[in-house]
Amino acid sequence: MDNKPTKANLLIEALPYIKEFHHKKIMIKYGGHAMIDEEAMNSTARDTVLLKYVGIEPIVVHGGGPEITRSMNKMGKEPRFIKGLRVTDEETMEIVTMVLVGKISTDIVSKIGFHGGKASGISGKDSQLIVASKKAPHKIKDDETGEEHVVDLGLVGQIDSLNTELLQMFTENDYIPVISPIGIDDNGNTLNLNADTVAGEIAAEIDSEKLIILTDVPGVLKDPKDPKSLIKQIKIDEVDDLIRDGIISSGMIPKIETCVKAIEEGVESAHIIDGRIEHSLLLEIFTTKGIGTMITK
Amino acid sequence: MDNKPTKANLLIEALPYIKEFHHKKIMIKYGGHAMIDEEAMNSTARDTVLLKYVGIEPIVVHGGGPEITRSMNKMGKEPRFIKGLRVTDEETMEIVTMVLVGKISTDIVSKIGFHGGKASGISGKDSQLIVASKKAPHKIKDDETGEEHVVDLGLVGQIDSLNTELLQMFTENDYIPVISPIGIDDNGNTLNLNADTVAGEIAAEIDSEKLIILTDVPGVLKDPKDPKSLIKQIKIDEVDDLIRDGIISSGMIPKIETCVKAIEEGVESAHIIDGRIEHSLLLEIFTTKGIGTMITK
Amino acid sequence: MDNKPTKANLLIEALPYIKEFHHKKIMIKYGGHAMIDEEAMNSTARDTVLLKYVGIEPIVVHGGGPEITRSMNKMGKEPRFIKGLRVTDEETMEIVTMVLVGKISTDIVSKIGFHGGKASGISGKDSQLIVASKKAPHKIKDDETGEEHVVDLGLVGQIDSLNTELLQMFTENDYIPVISPIGIDDNGNTLNLNADTVAGEIAAEIDSEKLIILTDVPGVLKDPKDPKSLIKQIKIDEVDDLIRDGIISSGMIPKIETCVKAIEEGVESAHIIDGRIEHSLLLEIFTTKGIGTMITK
Amino acid sequence: MDNKPTKANLLIEALPYIKEFHHKKIMIKYGGHAMIDEEAMNSTARDTVLLKYVGIEPIVVHGGGPEITRSMNKMGKEPRFIKGLRVTDEETMEIVTMVLVGKISTDIVSKIGFHGGKASGISGKDSQLIVASKKAPHKIKDDETGEEHVVDLGLVGQIDSLNTELLQMFTENDYIPVISPIGIDDNGNTLNLNADTVAGEIAAEIDSEKLIILTDVPGVLKDPKDPKSLIKQIKIDEVDDLIRDGIISSGMIPKIETCVKAIEEGVESAHIIDGRIEHSLLLEIFTTKGIGTMITK
Amino acid sequence: MDNKPTKANLLIEALPYIKEFHHKKIMIKYGGHAMIDEEAMNSTARDTVLLKYVGIEPIVVHGGGPEITRSMNKMGKEPRFIKGLRVTDEETMEIVTMVLVGKISTDIVSKIGFHGGKASGISGKDSQLIVASKKAPHKIKDDETGEEHVVDLGLVGQIDSLNTELLQMFTENDYIPVISPIGIDDNGNTLNLNADTVAGEIAAEIDSEKLIILTDVPGVLKDPKDPKSLIKQIKIDEVDDLIRDGIISSGMIPKIETCVKAIEEGVESAHIIDGRIEHSLLLEIFTTKGIGTMITK
Amino acid sequence: MDNKPTKANLLIEALPYIKEFHHKKIMIKYGGHAMIDEEAMNSTARDTVLLKYVGIEPIVVHGGGPEITRSMNKMGKEPRFIKGLRVTDEETMEIVTMVLVGKISTDIVSKIGFHGGKASGISGKDSQLIVASKKAPHKIKDDETGEEHVVDLGLVGQIDSLNTELLQMFTENDYIPVISPIGIDDNGNTLNLNADTVAGEIAAEIDSEKLIILTDVPGVLKDPKDPKSLIKQIKIDEVDDLIRDGIISSGMIPKIETCVKAIEEGVESAHIIDGRIEHSLLLEIFTTKGIGTMITK
Repeated sequence: MDNKPTKANLLIEALPYIKEFHHKKIMIKYGGHAMIDEEAMNSTARDTVLLKYVGIEPIVVHGGGPEITRSMNKMGKEPRFIKGLRVTDEETMEIVTMVLVGKISTDIVSKIGFHGGKASGISGKDSQLIVASKKAPHKIKDDETGEEHVVDLGLVGQIDSLNTELLQMFTENDYIPVISPIGIDDNGNTLNLNADTVAGEIAAEIDSEKLIILTDVPGVLKDPKDPKSLIKQIKIDEVDDLIRDGIISSGMIPKIETCVKAIEEGVESAHIIDGRIEHSLLLEIFTTKGIGTMITK
Repeated sequence: MDNKPTKANLLIEALPYIKEFHHKKIMIKYGGHAMIDEEAMNSTARDTVLLKYVGIEPIVVHGGGPEITRSMNKMGKEPRFIKGLRVTDEETMEIVTMVLVGKISTDIVSKIGFHGGKASGISGKDSQLIVASKKAPHKIKDDETGEEHVVDLGLVGQIDSLNTELLQMFTENDYIPVISPIGIDDNGNTLNLNADTVAGEIAAEIDSEKLIILTDVPGVLKDPKDPKSLIKQIKIDEVDDLIRDGIISSGMIPKIETCVKAIEEGVESAHIIDGRIEHSLLLEIFTTKGIGTMITK
Repeated sequence: MDNKPTKANLLIEALPYIKEFHHKKIMIKYGGHAMIDEEAMNSTARDTVLLKYVGIEPIVVHGGGPEITRSMNKMGKEPRFIKGLRVTDEETMEIVTMVLVGKISTDIVSKIGFHGGKASGISGKDSQLIVASKKAPHKIKDDETGEEHVVDLGLVGQIDSLNTELLQMFTENDYIPVISPIGIDDNGNTLNLNADTVAGEIAAEIDSEKLIILTDVPGVLKDPKDPKSLIKQIKIDEVDDLIRDGIISSGMIPKIETCVKAIEEGVESAHIIDGRIEHSLLLEIFTTKGIGTMITK
Repeated sequence: MDNKPTKANLLIEALPYIKEFHHKKIMIKYGGHAMIDEEAMNSTARDTVLLKYVGIEPIVVHGGGPEITRSMNKMGKEPRFIKGLRVTDEETMEIVTMVLVGKISTDIVSKIGFHGGKASGISGKDSQLIVASKKAPHKIKDDETGEEHVVDLGLVGQIDSLNTELLQMFTENDYIPVISPIGIDDNGNTLNLNADTVAGEIAAEIDSEKLIILTDVPGVLKDPKDPKSLIKQIKIDEVDDLIRDGIISSGMIPKIETCVKAIEEGVESAHIIDGRIEHSLLLEIFTTKGIGTMITK
Repeated sequence: MDNKPTKANLLIEALPYIKEFHHKKIMIKYGGHAMIDEEAMNSTARDTVLLKYVGIEPIVVHGGGPEITRSMNKMGKEPRFIKGLRVTDEETMEIVTMVLVGKISTDIVSKIGFHGGKASGISGKDSQLIVASKKAPHKIKDDETGEEHVVDLGLVGQIDSLNTELLQMFTENDYIPVISPIGIDDNGNTLNLNADTVAGEIAAEIDSEKLIILTDVPGVLKDPKDPKSLIKQIKIDEVDDLIRDGIISSGMIPKIETCVKAIEEGVESAHIIDGRIEHSLLLEIFTTKGIGTMITK
Repeated sequence: MDNKPTKANLLIEALPYIKEFHHKKIMIKYGGHAMIDEEAMNSTARDTVLLKYVGIEPIVVHGGGPEITRSMNKMGKEPRFIKGLRVTDEETMEIVTMVLVGKISTDIVSKIGFHGGKASGISGKDSQLIVASKKAPHKIKDDETGEEHVVDLGLVGQIDSLNTELLQMFTENDYIPVISPIGIDDNGNTLNLNADTVAGEIAAEIDSEKLIILTDVPGVLKDPKDPKSLIKQIKIDEVDDLIRDGIISSGMIPKIETCVKAIEEGVESAHIIDGRIEHSLLLEIFTTKGIGTMITK
């Protein structure tokens, strides 16, 4: 009986957060380590189910880069990138859709179901959830020659509008929607979308309380080599300075910009957290200090 | 960051119980130590609020013996007991009602409110929640002389019927009802009722999953002097033997009989737990072993 | 058969008023003679139930001064007043709460139930119905010496905010709420409130059609010694003159001010009526002339 | 102020009946004197509206014999009767429909509306409320010659089935439906129906509490010449004897049979009352003795 | 099997219109040829039912001039017209009501029912659907003498207000309301109304998508003698010119003005179509070209 | 204007079927030619949307054999069949899932959306829609050697239970669910299911009116070489004889057995139709003769 009171104490400590986020929506972007293997996905799914059971409404958007590349390789299709962006021809788009909707999403749904949640996979094509249009080709400067090239990434889209009626139906009926980041254009074509962007824009549209992005870094670090230099909280009007100073750089920039946009459109706070830490989701939500970087107004 | 994963682990350990009792009603009889002082009442109230927030529907029935006696003394009215049962004349009944409804219930309601729950006090008189009738006088044998006396305890009642429509309204609208154990007879008279009995009968009527009685003992003990001799689980058809063998005795007998009746009428399990242990309520509900005695079918 | 058509005629005469107030809320402040004894309370309760059955929604706030004083005396606690206002220390507050919530309210609820209504007692502590704060001490001039004293009446409060969600739930489900005039402050302390004020402020908050205050006088009289000098109707902008001219004086002033405030906040009319007349409630509502003083915009 | 308490007393006396029939349906057959002129119809309509406002759900079926004959005469069409039953050819049926639906029903609807009720006229043709079929021709013996004739009354129908969905919609939305007693057969033809029968069968189908038939006699009289010989109550198993003894005779027989059938199918009580007495409807419902003959199980 | 694919093709061709008007209200004014005989009324009713079944919400207003005149003749009452307007004395008003409500409306309701729709007849008197007032007498110049006469047409009304709650109840419950164009004034008197006007004003009030008026002409013709000179579409700001040029003239003027008013108050389009063409209703709604004249903003 | 009345006539001819199946569910198994190319899928999707718009509730289950084989070939994975059944190892199961859920289902959803329907893809894994278990290995006789082999087809499942709550939510909210025929076992593993069986069992579970299976044959033929020998209707108790006589043979046997089972469990009729005929779906539903073989009780 010795350790039990301690256990109950911890439940009691979580109470203020459970109250604060009661019946609130929390958008969670699954990515990186949190989806790396069976065990990691199970853990992430179980944490998500716990949120649901304590009265929070989680909505999931998942990414899938590494799995897509693996599948393309299997199919003898060579992935092609320009400056880090995937060139998406029709055949690639078909593979992307199959992997995101037919593999990753069904896996997440199974795992949430296994832990007692009711999940349902939806893609941006379901009842026109995400209407998108092809991104215009843009100029890229060759670092070496200094020449400018016009680059067309193919079927890569930007979000035009969201029809979240379907999402509302899910959350009102206690389902956890699991969203694959593809869009549909006016002619019925499928377009590849950035998962962080999808998570951010849907979060804003459905009045989500939080946007939580699971990554493979501790958050924003003052010194990228020192994980102890984590910046716990950033206000959105500090972001420009941090970028100029090089503290927010490269791959973190679009993530932070997604967060800033979501907050400007009404999300209360956005969180960049480390999916490599077990239960990082719960620790970020149910502890005062949290474990990653929180962006707020 | 060291102890945090542990904290989250404990939340995850509670998940199976949170799932099992989701949207289920749990009737809690407040009594003894759990109501002894400000701090104890605050702790009990906070635990009750936590149950609500993780999706369980607590209903509270409270007792109040010691407080009644204190108030009677203040008013210069001497409490009179026959074989442990309070003799209740009209003036006593008025004091009992004032203390239960006007003092104890309003206190509990305040404390639940303070911790973030929505509570509302109701007595058995509100919209005829508890219709009762006066208990017939009964014979008691004088232990010394062996003579039999007919004893009339006065305004002490037994439950005839329950109108739980009001309770349903509260639970459906996310209120925690706090019930004072008095009844009303067909002529509008108030009757004194046993709080355990009220808890048990209402638990059965509203299809409660559990009946939890907070007491000042660890539960049913094989050896009353050895708190380590706790019997963790009793099946209702073992009860007769346990009474005959003297293991269940004196004040515990009516409590156990209340539990047995509740189970026979549909409550899944009844629990006698030790209110002196902090968070005993949470430990009983959210741990495999529990901390008291569980009675089941 | 002779007198029967007459009887039906009277029902027909009430029809215009029944129609006018159909599904409208009427706030009734019980006080004075209307609560003086069993018979008076029964009559008031029966009239209230009739209102409910003909489609009006009565809400009751009750007072309780005399009963509180009686109970304090019983408990050997001497009531103390400064200029007519009860000084409320903690012990007094406890007694006040017990008497209002545990005695008077449960009595009214019983009687309404006995006459076929569904009533439920609530205090200002139930789900934070009435959030109040302690009144600041104020200066009082000694009539004899002319000296000013700072007087602290103790736990006497003023209303800060109302959470009427609970009230709405009651009226939507055909319950008659019976409200005890105590409040709760941010720290969970109980505060003593003026019952007329509570009735008036709640009436305004819940869009009550009428506020009816049962008193022991015929209404506002031009000549206080002549009950025939009743002023049937006062417009709120005539009130200042009537006070200056001494026609509205002493104890009537705060009542009228409560009425004026309620009307300014949206109540259609306020009524000061004589609870000593049988069925005064029905006569005021269902007859053209009424029997007391009506205050309107 | 002298007579006012009396007035309120009378309201209070009606309370038990108002409670008893709260939210209950009462089917009222308008006929005879109650529809004889503007004043009578106004009075009947006002009484009906009062029932609605005190929480009772009145449903009206009206007759119309005299008005039909008047209209036929105006149109130069001679009414023809065989043994008191109207022979209904197609032209007559058209006139009957126009008078019932287009004149009498719209008149009643106007008057109910004028007194503050929401009424809507419906005929048996509206969404197939009353599906009927033509009555088979039947033999009639000539009283003088003793010969038997086969008589075909034409478009006179009997009720086959009722589709009361429309009625439910009206009563649930606080409308008073006013039903014209015509039916529709499977081929879309209109059929003439007996209004008492329509009232009785619909009363049973919609679980009406009472069936009240307004007539021009005091009720069933032991001695038809002595209005004081009124039989206040008849049990349905006494009816056969009363017919055999000639106490129930001629035109009263089908009315009583309609009442008996309605009661056998679930209506609590049926009432034959005198529409010539003012407010007879209210007197029958709101007084202990009533004023006519009540038939019960 | 040969012609079947063609059949299905036609269903598919109607799909865009079925989608466009899904759950939209369409007000249909029945008049002229569409009501001329059994066959025509059956065809019109069947088309109306089809609209309902493919998800459109038809509301019907009917006229009835010729039938009224026929009935008046039968009753030996001579119809009197001044400049084409029916002089309506009380007796005429009674006949008008009987014919509209008791004959035409019940006929339409039967036929809609026969084809599988749920219809219910309502007049402007039902729950005060159409509150009207008597038109003021107006001056008319004698074409021959040039003298001006003050003409009082009697019980001819203009619409003051509409209470469409009843209509909403019908359409929400899948009924097709069939409205007779009479009104009721504040004193309960019935007034004769122009059916086109009733259709137009109700169409605007209930946010109807279309107003379709069935007439006996092809629509607005450039050359009244050449049916091929049909003007397919008129914008409301072209109407004044068309009237000035004499293209819209005589009886068409009030119809067009009704259409213009309806469109100004929110109806999307109004249609004057030829009821003599079979299925003109369906052809106007489900084909691109339509068959009559469409008026739009 | 010549051909237009014809067009409207055809709409009117469909009316009886539109009425008969109003608000009824129709389960459609997409397969074979109906999914063979863009044009065929577009046509099938448009027909499905039409059903929805005329008030029928279509539910879609799709197959996908040829596409799966194509994708496996692309990925260099050789499909293996034993007696026509696909051997499904883990890698194959992953490809099957990706193709069914990630390619075929999203394609159908897009096309239904393009034609104006609201579709959402769901697999048997979404909220445990289809709980299945691995089929036991079964013996197969080698046609040549006569030897028996025990064959384990791998991850091929049979349906254990259905959780159609999710489906109900979709149909109640006007969505067309598109179901991929995979199941989930108790351990979260994915299993390959026969699409016809899935369609049949879900049809029965959700009280579908019809089960329509789109194939590449005209239906059941008496003489397989003569398409004119189509059997229009089969009663379920004739099926055994037809199988024994060899008229129902090979691939048609499991389809017919699925139909028989569905009908035995409550589906009104099952239809084997030829997806190669344009609009075969509409012709089967909206014409008297239909175009394929109908199986009924």
